[in-house]
Amino acid sequence: MESVWLGIDVGGTNVVMALGDGDGNLFAKKRIPTLAADGAARVLKRIIDAVEAMLAETGTPASRLGGIGLGVPGLVDAKRGVVRLAVNLNWRQVAVSEVFRSHFGVPVHVDNDVRAATLGEYQFGAGKGFRHFLCLTLGTGIGSGMLLDGRIYAGATGGSGEIGHMVVDPDGIPCTCGNRGCLETIASGPSLVRFVRERMADGVAVNLDDDELTVERIGSAFDAQNALAREAIQRAGKYLGFALANAVNLLNVERVIIGGGVSLLGDRLFGFIRSEFQRFVLQGVGNGVEIVPAALGDEAGVVGALVLARQTTGFPSDTPATM
Amino acid sequence: MESVWLGIDVGGTNVVMALGDGDGNLFAKKRIPTLAADGAARVLKRIIDAVEAMLAETGTPASRLGGIGLGVPGLVDAKRGVVRLAVNLNWRQVAVSEVFRSHFGVPVHVDNDVRAATLGEYQFGAGKGFRHFLCLTLGTGIGSGMLLDGRIYAGATGGSGEIGHMVVDPDGIPCTCGNRGCLETIASGPSLVRFVRERMADGVAVNLDDDELTVERIGSAFDAQNALAREAIQRAGKYLGFALANAVNLLNVERVIIGGGVSLLGDRLFGFIRSEFQRFVLQGVGNGVEIVPAALGDEAGVVGALVLARQTTGFPSDTPATM
Repeated sequence: MESVWLGIDVGGTNVVMALGDGDGNLFAKKRIPTLAADGAARVLKRIIDAVEAMLAETGTPASRLGGIGLGVPGLVDAKRGVVRLAVNLNWRQVAVSEVFRSHFGVPVHVDNDVRAATLGEYQFGAGKGFRHFLCLTLGTGIGSGMLLDGRIYAGATGGSGEIGHMVVDPDGIPCTCGNRGCLETIASGPSLVRFVRERMADGVAVNLDDDELTVERIGSAFDAQNALAREAIQRAGKYLGFALANAVNLLNVERVIIGGGVSLLGDRLFGFIRSEFQRFVLQGVGNGVEIVPAALGDEAGVVGALVLARQTTGFPSDTPATM
Repeated sequence: MESVWLGIDVGGTNVVMALGDGDGNLFAKKRIPTLAADGAARVLKRIIDAVEAMLAETGTPASRLGGIGLGVPGLVDAKRGVVRLAVNLNWRQVAVSEVFRSHFGVPVHVDNDVRAATLGEYQFGAGKGFRHFLCLTLGTGIGSGMLLDGRIYAGATGGSGEIGHMVVDPDGIPCTCGNRGCLETIASGPSLVRFVRERMADGVAVNLDDDELTVERIGSAFDAQNALAREAIQRAGKYLGFALANAVNLLNVERVIIGGGVSLLGDRLFGFIRSEFQRFVLQGVGNGVEIVPAALGDEAGVVGALVLARQTTGFPSDTPATM
């Protein structure tokens, strides 16, 4: 009987898990709240319970499980299967692989969530067929994964891709990292919302409902010609295009893929990104570089985790190594 | 009889060539002016004549030549051995490998000069033993080479490493690339000299001799407590540290190596670079990253070209692939 793979995308808010085959097809998908405040042990226990329920609901015997892959937002020691530090989850030195291996008795592969999403886009999404691309995730934070020379690049200590902390406005507002004006303080979801809310407090605009301001609402206001919504999105796009031009000048990748919740603003955001990118990227390096939306949407993470799961058994042979 | 290797570092001003063994030891070294205005054919002819003279002077029969490596400042198609574009040399689509192969009858390997220097530092210099480092060259221009996961990283079209065109001051002066405020407009040798000269024209300082202002003289003036020299070097160091922090946040390398003429300012420059780097690099990514001078000095390029020469015959097996 053919093996089934389990992918788990652990987010700060939700955990998404899916069963799938080797071609990226999902048989079943489940989402549970992370409730990180409960601590790592209880979060992991809840994930295991949810997986057991999903196996039962789909009539999948645990014996068919070929391997498990997990994407976790933070610094991951993929070789040892240990999450070294995941700030949003408040996890430190959590031996994630061991927990799942001992329960399910199958190989487990853990890696950084953005790199997992990059792997998903590479195998089944907007990165298919490319050997050099940057995959940006715009959500609560801003991170990036890189495929260089056809391999996922993790960096010396698994900490590569921190484009969210590129300082793009030295006079900007403080960032959680201790600096000022990081890209993340301008173009993340919460930063977009905060910018609009603060300008509304200054009496700049009246058409937005402050009570439940979201990126999606800002997008709708943009469509309704709201000047503040446009200013906020244009500002984010401008600094994103600038940061991406710097990154492409350094990395000479063929393509930039952008996913995460904020990327759902679509062309409203991408137009500004592309024009600023073209302004700052070096001719000869940036020519022909396309900036495209992630093809797997918010499933990139869980599909990437599925790819990680397959890697536990070394199948298929053309899958790039991580770390 | 053991093979001898020939390395050639083609610069905009001078061509340096050397004969050496597989361990990076140079038996003979020669320097000739490039005189690029003569055109590629005559420049290459002069290099070949100089090599022939060096072989004769050292009593080296051409039959001992195992291979030839060349580093060229520009976009190089290493697979085909063609220099696609070298602006400072005014070379376009020059089949360098073929010229040397047909004359000397040995394998030839051409690559970008900064990547050749990076290879030299990796094999025999400040990058020895590291698997992830950035090698910055501060000269007439600013370029960088990368060793990632133990391999030279060239990018999708051989154009990686353009950190010199990271825009660090959007209100800055125009750059040759068409943008404003690129790192190169602030921290290259000519930019340092221009900054000092312009401020002198404004009557800011009187202790520097304008007639033959060089980076070396600015360094001496710094030692003599000249405020303008200090301002110029501090400004360059500040923006270099900022740009390097952005690059390290993205690449998570273990080490930054800085070579080229401007790097000879030594601690006068490195102190400013290091303090600004620490200010902007992300904790957890930048911790422990050392910023060190190139160990091979201005020989990095020609030693790297020697390593390229050895690669023509696949010796030794642990030498990283380029392109």
